[in-house]
Amino acid sequence: VSALLLIAHGSRLASSNDEIRTLTGNLRQISSPFQLVECAFLEIAQPSICEGLRNLIANGAPTILVLPYFLSAGRHVTNDIPAEIAKIQLESPGVEIKIAPYFGATPLIEQILMQQAIAGYVKNSSN
Amino acid sequence: VSALLLIAHGSRLASSNDEIRTLTGNLRQISSPFQLVECAFLEIAQPSICEGLRNLIANGAPTILVLPYFLSAGRHVTNDIPAEIAKIQLESPGVEIKIAPYFGATPLIEQILMQQAIAGYVKNSSN
Repeated sequence: VSALLLIAHGSRLASSNDEIRTLTGNLRQISSPFQLVECAFLEIAQPSICEGLRNLIANGAPTILVLPYFLSAGRHVTNDIPAEIAKIQLESPGVEIKIAPYFGATPLIEQILMQQAIAGYVKNSSN
Repeated sequence: VSALLLIAHGSRLASSNDEIRTLTGNLRQISSPFQLVECAFLEIAQPSICEGLRNLIANGAPTILVLPYFLSAGRHVTNDIPAEIAKIQLESPGVEIKIAPYFGATPLIEQILMQQAIAGYVKNSSN
Protein backbone atom coordinates (compact mmCIF):
# COMPACT_ATOMS: atom_id res chain seq x y z
CA VAL A 1 0.00 0.00 0.00
CA SER A 2 1.43 3.34 -1.11
CA ALA A 3 -0.06 6.59 0.06
CA LEU A 4 0.09 10.16 -1.19
CA LEU A 5 -0.44 12.97 1.30
CA LEU A 6 -0.98 16.42 -0.19
CA ILE A 7 -0.06 19.15 2.30
CA ALA A 8 -1.73 22.55 2.01
CA HIS A 9 -1.24 25.59 4.22
CA GLY A 10 -4.77 25.77 5.64
CA SER A 11 -6.99 28.85 5.59
CA ARG A 12 -9.45 30.63 7.87
CA LEU A 13 -11.86 30.47 4.92
CA ALA A 14 -13.62 27.10 4.99
CA SER A 15 -14.21 27.31 1.22
CA SER A 16 -10.49 27.50 0.67
CA ASN A 17 -9.87 24.32 2.67
CA ASP A 18 -12.73 22.67 0.82
CA GLU A 19 -11.00 23.50 -2.48
CA ILE A 20 -8.08 21.38 -1.27
CA ARG A 21 -10.39 18.53 -0.27
CA THR A 22 -12.06 18.64 -3.69
CA LEU A 23 -8.68 18.67 -5.40
CA THR A 24 -7.66 15.65 -3.31
CA GLY A 25 -10.85 13.84 -4.31
CA ASN A 26 -10.06 14.56 -7.96
CA LEU A 27 -6.50 13.26 -7.54
CA ARG A 28 -7.99 10.04 -6.17
CA GLN A 29 -9.81 9.55 -9.49
CA ILE A 30 -6.58 9.67 -11.52
CA SER A 31 -4.94 6.32 -12.16
CA SER A 32 -1.75 6.19 -10.07
CA PRO A 33 0.42 3.90 -7.95
CA PHE A 34 -1.19 5.35 -4.79
CA GLN A 35 -3.89 3.28 -3.12
CA LEU A 36 -4.53 6.03 -0.60
CA VAL A 37 -4.65 9.75 -1.46
CA GLU A 38 -5.36 12.20 1.35
CA CYS A 39 -4.72 15.80 2.29
CA ALA A 40 -3.55 17.48 5.48
CA PHE A 41 -3.00 21.06 6.59
CA LEU A 42 0.04 22.76 8.12
CA GLU A 43 -2.08 25.23 10.07
CA ILE A 44 -5.64 26.18 10.99
CA ALA A 45 -7.56 23.37 9.24
CA GLN A 46 -7.86 19.66 9.99
CA PRO A 47 -6.38 17.10 9.72
CA SER A 48 -2.96 18.38 10.75
CA ILE A 49 0.11 16.88 9.10
CA CYS A 50 0.67 14.61 12.09
CA GLU A 51 -2.96 13.47 12.10
CA GLY A 52 -2.87 12.92 8.34
CA LEU A 53 0.27 10.78 8.57
CA ARG A 54 -1.04 8.81 11.56
CA ASN A 55 -4.31 8.10 9.73
CA LEU A 56 -2.45 6.75 6.70
CA ILE A 57 -0.22 4.60 8.91
CA ALA A 58 -3.29 3.31 10.77
CA ASN A 59 -4.78 2.43 7.38
CA GLY A 60 -1.78 0.23 6.64
CA ALA A 61 0.45 2.39 4.44
CA PRO A 62 4.10 1.34 4.82
CA THR A 63 5.20 3.98 2.26
CA ILE A 64 3.98 7.57 2.21
CA LEU A 65 4.91 10.28 -0.26
CA VAL A 66 4.25 13.78 1.03
CA LEU A 67 3.73 16.48 -1.60
CA PRO A 68 3.75 20.08 -0.34
CA TYR A 69 1.12 22.05 -2.27
CA PHE A 70 3.03 25.32 -1.97
CA LEU A 71 4.23 27.70 -4.64
CA SER A 72 7.57 28.68 -3.19
CA ALA A 73 10.23 27.28 -0.92
CA GLY A 74 9.50 29.47 2.08
CA ARG A 75 9.99 28.40 5.70
CA HIS A 76 6.87 26.24 5.60
CA VAL A 77 8.40 24.06 2.89
CA THR A 78 12.00 24.10 4.09
CA ASN A 79 11.46 23.80 7.85
CA ASP A 80 7.92 23.39 9.12
CA ILE A 81 6.72 20.49 6.98
CA PRO A 82 9.93 18.43 7.41
CA ALA A 83 9.75 19.04 11.19
CA GLU A 84 6.22 17.61 11.39
CA ILE A 85 7.23 14.61 9.30
CA ALA A 86 10.27 14.00 11.51
CA LYS A 87 7.98 13.69 14.57
CA ILE A 88 5.96 10.94 12.94
CA GLN A 89 9.06 9.27 11.55
CA LEU A 90 10.37 8.97 15.15
CA GLU A 91 7.01 7.61 16.28
CA SER A 92 6.82 5.06 13.42
CA PRO A 93 10.37 4.23 12.33
CA GLY A 94 9.22 1.29 10.19
CA VAL A 95 7.20 3.51 7.87
CA GLU A 96 8.97 5.08 4.90
CA ILE A 97 7.97 8.75 4.58
CA LYS A 98 9.44 10.67 1.64
CA ILE A 99 8.93 14.28 0.57
CA ALA A 100 8.43 15.14 -3.10
CA PRO A 101 9.53 18.55 -4.42
CA TYR A 102 6.97 21.25 -3.59
CA PHE A 103 4.39 22.02 -6.27
CA GLY A 104 5.96 25.33 -7.37
CA ALA A 105 9.18 23.51 -8.26
CA THR A 106 7.67 22.00 -11.40
CA PRO A 107 9.05 23.58 -14.58
CA LEU A 108 5.56 23.38 -16.11
CA ILE A 109 4.38 26.39 -14.10
CA GLU A 110 5.55 29.01 -16.56
CA GLN A 111 3.75 27.44 -19.51
CA ILE A 112 0.54 27.12 -17.53
CA LEU A 113 0.71 30.67 -16.20
CA MET A 114 1.21 32.05 -19.68
CA GLN A 115 -1.67 29.96 -21.06
CA GLN A 116 -3.88 31.37 -18.32
CA ALA A 117 -2.71 34.92 -18.99
CA ILE A 118 -3.36 34.61 -22.73
CA ALA A 119 -6.82 33.17 -22.05
CA GLY A 120 -7.53 36.14 -19.76
CA TYR A 121 -6.19 38.56 -22.36
CA VAL A 122 -8.29 37.14 -25.20
CA LYS A 123 -11.41 37.04 -23.05
CA ASN A 124 -10.98 40.67 -22.02
CA SER A 125 -10.10 41.84 -25.52
CA SER A 126 -13.24 40.33 -27.02
CA ASN A 127 -15.54 42.08 -24.55
CA VAL B 1 1.08 48.02 -25.30
CA SER B 2 -0.35 45.25 -23.16
CA ALA B 3 1.11 44.36 -19.80
CA LEU B 4 0.94 41.32 -17.57
CA LEU B 5 1.43 41.76 -13.83
CA LEU B 6 1.96 38.59 -11.82
CA ILE B 7 1.01 39.08 -8.17
CA ALA B 8 2.67 36.93 -5.51
CA HIS B 9 2.14 37.02 -1.76
CA GLY B 10 5.65 38.12 -0.77
CA SER B 11 7.86 36.33 1.75
CA ARG B 12 10.32 37.22 4.51
CA LEU B 13 12.73 34.87 2.74
CA ALA B 14 14.51 36.86 0.03
CA SER B 15 15.13 33.64 -1.94
CA SER B 16 11.41 33.05 -2.12
CA ASN B 17 10.78 36.50 -3.62
CA ASP B 18 13.68 35.92 -6.00
CA GLU B 19 11.97 32.72 -7.20
CA ILE B 20 9.05 34.92 -8.29
CA ARG B 21 11.36 37.37 -10.06
CA THR B 22 13.06 34.49 -11.89
CA LEU B 23 9.69 33.05 -12.86
CA THR B 24 8.68 36.49 -14.18
CA GLY B 25 11.88 36.69 -16.20
CA ASN B 26 11.11 33.28 -17.69
CA LEU B 27 7.56 34.36 -18.54
CA ARG B 28 9.06 37.30 -20.42
CA GLN B 29 10.92 34.85 -22.69
CA ILE B 30 7.69 33.10 -23.76
CA SER B 31 6.08 34.45 -26.90
CA SER B 32 2.88 36.23 -25.84
CA PRO B 33 0.70 39.26 -26.55
CA PHE B 34 2.28 41.06 -23.56
CA GLN B 35 5.00 43.62 -24.29
CA LEU B 36 5.59 44.14 -20.58
CA VAL B 37 5.69 41.33 -18.01
CA GLU B 38 6.36 42.27 -14.39
CA CYS B 39 5.69 40.99 -10.89
CA ALA B 40 4.49 42.67 -7.72
CA PHE B 41 3.90 41.55 -4.14
CA LEU B 42 0.85 41.84 -1.91
CA GLU B 43 2.93 42.07 1.26
CA ILE B 44 6.49 42.30 2.59
CA ALA B 45 8.43 42.45 -0.72
CA GLN B 46 8.74 45.18 -3.35
CA PRO B 47 7.30 46.39 -5.62
CA SER B 48 3.86 46.51 -4.01
CA ILE B 49 0.81 45.99 -6.21
CA CYS B 50 0.25 49.75 -6.40
CA GLU B 51 3.89 50.40 -7.30
CA GLY B 52 3.83 47.63 -9.89
CA LEU B 53 0.70 49.00 -11.54
CA ARG B 54 1.99 52.60 -11.47
CA ASN B 55 5.28 51.50 -13.06
CA LEU B 56 3.46 49.75 -15.90
CA ILE B 57 1.23 52.79 -16.46
CA ALA B 58 4.31 55.07 -16.44
CA ASN B 59 5.81 52.76 -19.07
CA GLY B 60 2.83 53.39 -21.33
CA ALA B 61 0.61 50.34 -20.79
CA PRO B 62 -3.05 51.23 -21.48
CA THR B 63 -4.14 47.64 -20.76
CA ILE B 64 -2.95 45.58 -17.82
CA LEU B 65 -3.87 42.00 -16.98
CA VAL B 66 -3.26 41.08 -13.35
CA LEU B 67 -2.74 37.39 -12.61
CA PRO B 68 -2.78 36.39 -8.92
CA TYR B 69 -0.15 33.68 -8.36
CA PHE B 70 -2.07 32.06 -5.53
CA LEU B 71 -3.27 28.51 -5.09
CA SER B 72 -6.62 29.15 -3.50
CA ALA B 73 -9.31 31.79 -3.39
CA GLY B 74 -8.60 33.04 0.12
CA ARG B 75 -9.10 36.63 1.28
CA HIS B 76 -5.97 37.79 -0.51
CA VAL B 77 -7.46 36.77 -3.85
CA THR B 78 -11.07 37.74 -3.19
CA ASN B 79 -10.56 41.00 -1.29
CA ASP B 80 -7.01 42.31 -0.88
CA ILE B 81 -5.78 42.18 -4.48
CA PRO B 82 -9.00 43.69 -5.96
CA ALA B 83 -8.85 46.47 -3.32
CA GLU B 84 -5.30 47.45 -4.35
CA ILE B 85 -6.29 47.42 -8.01
CA ALA B 86 -9.34 49.58 -7.31
CA LYS B 87 -7.08 52.28 -5.81
CA ILE B 88 -5.00 52.51 -8.98
CA GLN B 89 -8.09 52.30 -11.17
CA LEU B 90 -9.43 55.41 -9.40
CA GLU B 91 -6.08 57.14 -9.86
CA SER B 92 -5.84 56.23 -13.58
CA PRO B 93 -9.39 55.78 -14.91
CA GLY B 94 -8.20 55.68 -18.53
CA VAL B 95 -6.17 52.51 -18.01
CA GLU B 96 -7.93 49.17 -18.40
CA ILE B 97 -6.97 46.84 -15.56
CA LYS B 98 -8.42 43.34 -15.63
CA ILE B 99 -7.93 40.41 -13.25
CA ALA B 100 -7.41 36.89 -14.61
CA PRO B 101 -8.52 33.87 -12.55
CA TYR B 102 -5.98 33.02 -9.83
CA PHE B 103 -3.40 30.39 -10.69
CA GLY B 104 -4.98 27.59 -8.61
CA ALA B 105 -8.18 27.88 -10.64
CA THR B 106 -6.65 26.15 -13.66
CA PRO B 107 -8.00 22.64 -14.18
CA LEU B 108 -4.49 21.48 -15.18
CA ILE B 109 -3.34 21.45 -11.56
CA GLU B 110 -4.50 17.92 -10.81
CA GLN B 111 -2.66 16.39 -13.75
CA ILE B 112 0.54 18.23 -12.88
CA LEU B 113 0.33 17.30 -9.20
CA MET B 114 -0.15 13.65 -10.04
CA GLN B 115 2.77 13.71 -12.51
CA GLN B 116 4.95 15.19 -9.77
CA ALA B 117 3.77 12.62 -7.25
CA ILE B 118 4.45 9.72 -9.61
CA ALA B 119 7.92 11.11 -10.40
CA GLY B 120 8.61 11.33 -6.65
CA TYR B 121 7.29 7.80 -6.13
CA VAL B 122 9.43 6.28 -8.88
CA LYS B 123 12.52 8.14 -7.72
CA ASN B 124 12.09 6.94 -4.16
CA SER B 125 11.25 3.38 -5.17
CA SER B 126 14.42 3.03 -7.25
CA ASN B 127 16.70 4.11 -4.38
